[in-house]
Amino acid sequence: MNSPSVTTLTPLIRNIVPPSEEWRMRARLHLDTLTKPLGSLGRLEDLAAQMLAIRQEEFAAPVGKAVYIFAADHGITAEGVSAYPREVTYQMVLNFLKKGAAINVLARLHGVQLHVVDVGVDGDLHGAEGLVHRKVCQGSRNMLHEAAMTEEQLTRALNVGIELAGEASSAGQMLIAIGEMGIGNTTSASAITCSLTGSPASLATGRGTGVGTEAHTHKTRIVQAVVDKHFRGAAPSGLDILRCVGGLEIAAMTGMILSAARHKLITVVDGFISAAAAALAVAIEPNVQGYLVAGHRSEEPGHQILLDYLKLSPILTLSMRLGEGTGAVLAMPILESAICLYTQMATFDSAGVSGASA
Amino acid sequence: MNSPSVTTLTPLIRNIVPPSEEWRMRARLHLDTLTKPLGSLGRLEDLAAQMLAIRQEEFAAPVGKAVYIFAADHGITAEGVSAYPREVTYQMVLNFLKKGAAINVLARLHGVQLHVVDVGVDGDLHGAEGLVHRKVCQGSRNMLHEAAMTEEQLTRALNVGIELAGEASSAGQMLIAIGEMGIGNTTSASAITCSLTGSPASLATGRGTGVGTEAHTHKTRIVQAVVDKHFRGAAPSGLDILRCVGGLEIAAMTGMILSAARHKLITVVDGFISAAAAALAVAIEPNVQGYLVAGHRSEEPGHQILLDYLKLSPILTLSMRLGEGTGAVLAMPILESAICLYTQMATFDSAGVSGASA
Repeated sequence: MNSPSVTTLTPLIRNIVPPSEEWRMRARLHLDTLTKPLGSLGRLEDLAAQMLAIRQEEFAAPVGKAVYIFAADHGITAEGVSAYPREVTYQMVLNFLKKGAAINVLARLHGVQLHVVDVGVDGDLHGAEGLVHRKVCQGSRNMLHEAAMTEEQLTRALNVGIELAGEASSAGQMLIAIGEMGIGNTTSASAITCSLTGSPASLATGRGTGVGTEAHTHKTRIVQAVVDKHFRGAAPSGLDILRCVGGLEIAAMTGMILSAARHKLITVVDGFISAAAAALAVAIEPNVQGYLVAGHRSEEPGHQILLDYLKLSPILTLSMRLGEGTGAVLAMPILESAICLYTQMATFDSAGVSGASA
Repeated sequence: MNSPSVTTLTPLIRNIVPPSEEWRMRARLHLDTLTKPLGSLGRLEDLAAQMLAIRQEEFAAPVGKAVYIFAADHGITAEGVSAYPREVTYQMVLNFLKKGAAINVLARLHGVQLHVVDVGVDGDLHGAEGLVHRKVCQGSRNMLHEAAMTEEQLTRALNVGIELAGEASSAGQMLIAIGEMGIGNTTSASAITCSLTGSPASLATGRGTGVGTEAHTHKTRIVQAVVDKHFRGAAPSGLDILRCVGGLEIAAMTGMILSAARHKLITVVDGFISAAAAALAVAIEPNVQGYLVAGHRSEEPGHQILLDYLKLSPILTLSMRLGEGTGAVLAMPILESAICLYTQMATFDSAGVSGASA
């Protein structure tokens, strides 16, 4: 008999097909008629073609853009893996709601609708205005000793993201940035990276919010111990990895990424944790890959391992390591540029510009 | 006795001092109080600090942004160095005025004021509306046989840019993107690169708008012949390089970059030709370096040589090779993000967020 999480995902996954190669080709043909040397917009042309292949319809204007920040706490913080105390997750959620965090500034500047989702923050957020209330529980369990989530918690967290992607689609969004807040979650992302790719903890563990050298050594040891405890010698499924060494926000992000592909939304992956969720989504359903764009590459060493796994090249490389969706939202003006160039540029014919010699 | 161009630049250069280290330090201290892990905004923090060091005052809102496209024709096109016919310069200027080119789309999307400047287009643009009319002559001369410009043409072209930077400053602009349009001008930029850095033509010559392999070999030979003709064995000054192997639009760009530094404007360098103008400005006055930001790195191989010469790291690397200021304007949302994060984020104190452990 299937687990509840498998039962939840099966009908969804069945509806995820790759982006349309026919639309991608159509985009290429149109791009070649525009008043610019062939291919001279480089990556922007690839992105425009990918986005048209995903949407399978002409781009709507204005471009609907949203960022979702999934927040949750992590039992592993008991092991002293972060430079910041656990309560910062809760405090930063309040900062998001008061519009004082980096992601608030970037979302406002770039016209991106911001949704802050409590999936598992350890703190009382009852009645907090502007928050999307979807708390599953007060944080995950300590994965050094037991699975981070129960099967039921995993299923509920996945469903948070699945539902939000549906709502985003109904609301006319097109570009979806997936971000997070959760003290301790780079430890989880490192464990996911090791479990998925076979990488040793030493290569997949970074300094997170900024732990010192000694704490980094400790964190690396914890990551390796977590992976060894749950998966020694085994090749776990994406859902097993998520349940055992993931987190509530990571599960919600994975659900949203899967569901976004089903709804033909373009998912802009943010940093290390966001990439971990994307990698799990691709492990669960490989057709998701074509719906992903990597907003940036962060300073976390595991992020590049995951980008390789995802076969994605980041749009931006700005040495950021903040999370919150900041790297993804910062890439949105580039993505919107690609769309507007595609839809608004004159053609050689319409502008009366001579073409290149053969 | 000094040449007219030296006489023109001397008082300007005297007023170019490096950006303020005191303001850069002040910026760093403020950035460290904001609700994010120390240094986690990476390159955005460096850019914010550089921009404050240039401005030496708190950032104004909204951020004034402008792009200048300098257009001119090149006598070297007689040697068959471009994939496109010479008249495309003129046709593209009309396309800019009709708002159909890539730069029109990007400038509109990102709120950047666009100025199209005729410095030396070979074509009748009398009465063209929306154009900045500063034509010096109908294009430069064939630098394979003689200096591209006379001393008087050089001085007039430099002054076009010098005056426009003054006007931009008076109009409250803060970020200035420097772009161009000129069939044949990658040949000029390659010759400038070789003359400035000693690079052989084979490393500094690319495919421009897209010439084939045979034409590329021919173009490389022309670049080497041009450099050998004018500077064999000599170490020419920046102004000599500009006059002999530059172009009217490149001279205007160089003048604008010099003058922008004097007016404490932030110059966003675009592609290969824009970087050639920036490199000449730095060769003429090294203090200009601190005022420059590299918007992107293009596909032209000489561009990286110039970025090394300029000690600049590009914000974007998107395999573009279009010019028009497109790469610089595409970097503006990133620069504006850095400014807004600096001015709008909450501090740990104001938001009641706990700090990191020591």
